[in-house]
Amino acid sequence: MKQVMVVNTALALPPGKMAAQVAHASVSAFLVSPADAQRAWLQCGMPKIVLKGLSELALLDLLERAEAASIPAYLIRDAGRTVVAEGTITCLGIGPAAIADIDRLTGDLRLM
Amino acid sequence: MKQVMVVNTALALPPGKMAAQVAHASVSAFLVSPADAQRAWLQCGMPKIVLKGLSELALLDLLERAEAASIPAYLIRDAGRTVVAEGTITCLGIGPAAIADIDRLTGDLRLM
Repeated sequence: MKQVMVVNTALALPPGKMAAQVAHASVSAFLVSPADAQRAWLQCGMPKIVLKGLSELALLDLLERAEAASIPAYLIRDAGRTVVAEGTITCLGIGPAAIADIDRLTGDLRLM
Repeated sequence: MKQVMVVNTALALPPGKMAAQVAHASVSAFLVSPADAQRAWLQCGMPKIVLKGLSELALLDLLERAEAASIPAYLIRDAGRTVVAEGTITCLGIGPAAIADIDRLTGDLRLM
């Protein structure tokens, strides 16, 4: 099991802001995942990886592919109180799910 | 309600690695929080902030003060597979808890 967060690097967010969006995506994708996936992921130390997405469109495309594959995912739109405009897509959380299933979606993305 | 993550900035982690540690702390502190705090935080959009800690000692001191104040907190020690040595303290998650209670602990820390 693993979870990945894909950051919209086009925004060039400051590191702390980016990290908060990644945490947001991690908690949110976790909460929409099935209980057995949650349990299995927690038992193996909740491995998570942060990857680079190139744009909002790239994240939307990934979300669509995750949904088509029935892999839990959650798209973060920023509330817009600080650095970016309201509704800006900042990050996509995928899983926890089986490593092979996630790699099929994100295997070509680079580490953040 | 809010949650804060305090990063050990002495490690100068790469941004993606740092973000993964923050997400780790966020999920972990959430899971050790009481159900009513979890619910209240989710209902207000799970606000979270990432702050700078100066050292392992600073994070350990904060953890002790959180425990003394009965505020849920979770210290992340890295598994050491990638960038840092095994057991290195990378991040501390505090809350979700009442904003005033968290500010009493971390009000003097700077944004990451």
